[in-house]
Amino acid sequence: MPIEDVRTFVLYDIVEDKTRARIADVCLDFGLVRVQYSAFAGQLNRNKREELFLRLRDTLGDEVGKLLVQPVCEKDVTQMLLHENDEPPEEDL
Amino acid sequence: MPIEDVRTFVLYDIVEDKTRARIADVCLDFGLVRVQYSAFAGQLNRNKREELFLRLRDTLGDEVGKLLVQPVCEKDVTQMLLHENDEPPEEDL
Repeated sequence: MPIEDVRTFVLYDIVEDKTRARIADVCLDFGLVRVQYSAFAGQLNRNKREELFLRLRDTLGDEVGKLLVQPVCEKDVTQMLLHENDEPPEEDL
Repeated sequence: MPIEDVRTFVLYDIVEDKTRARIADVCLDFGLVRVQYSAFAGQLNRNKREELFLRLRDTLGDEVGKLLVQPVCEKDVTQMLLHENDEPPEEDL
């Protein structure tokens, strides 16, 4: 991957279900993967990250909600601490 | 602040309401502030960050859920993109 690509986290709080789903679709369009219910992550360069942020803002429009786009360098990614207890098989996230 | 302190993000997906509230309490205990419904952030050094992670794991116990503790260096924090549309006054997050 190009050296300028860093991990980007997208976190959001969106009240409206439909809008929240559209926000998730935008993240998927940009090649991010879901890491939590309302969080995505993936490799983006600065231009793509800013483009994503504008798309997310447009998608949210005037609705109540919060968007956070946070780049995280590889050094920091190596220090991520992660813990997961199995989810029931009927969940599809 | 000490130079080794970096911004730490805590993200979680917790099924049980009570446990989710207890996870939030642990984050508050460590001086983090809520940045999203299920996300906190604040300055922690590496020891405190690892201590927090252990506390969060203990608090989750065997319950279904996911915990992610991500340090983010100051350089990356300056590149954070944030957008928020006002929440209704009755919300207290």
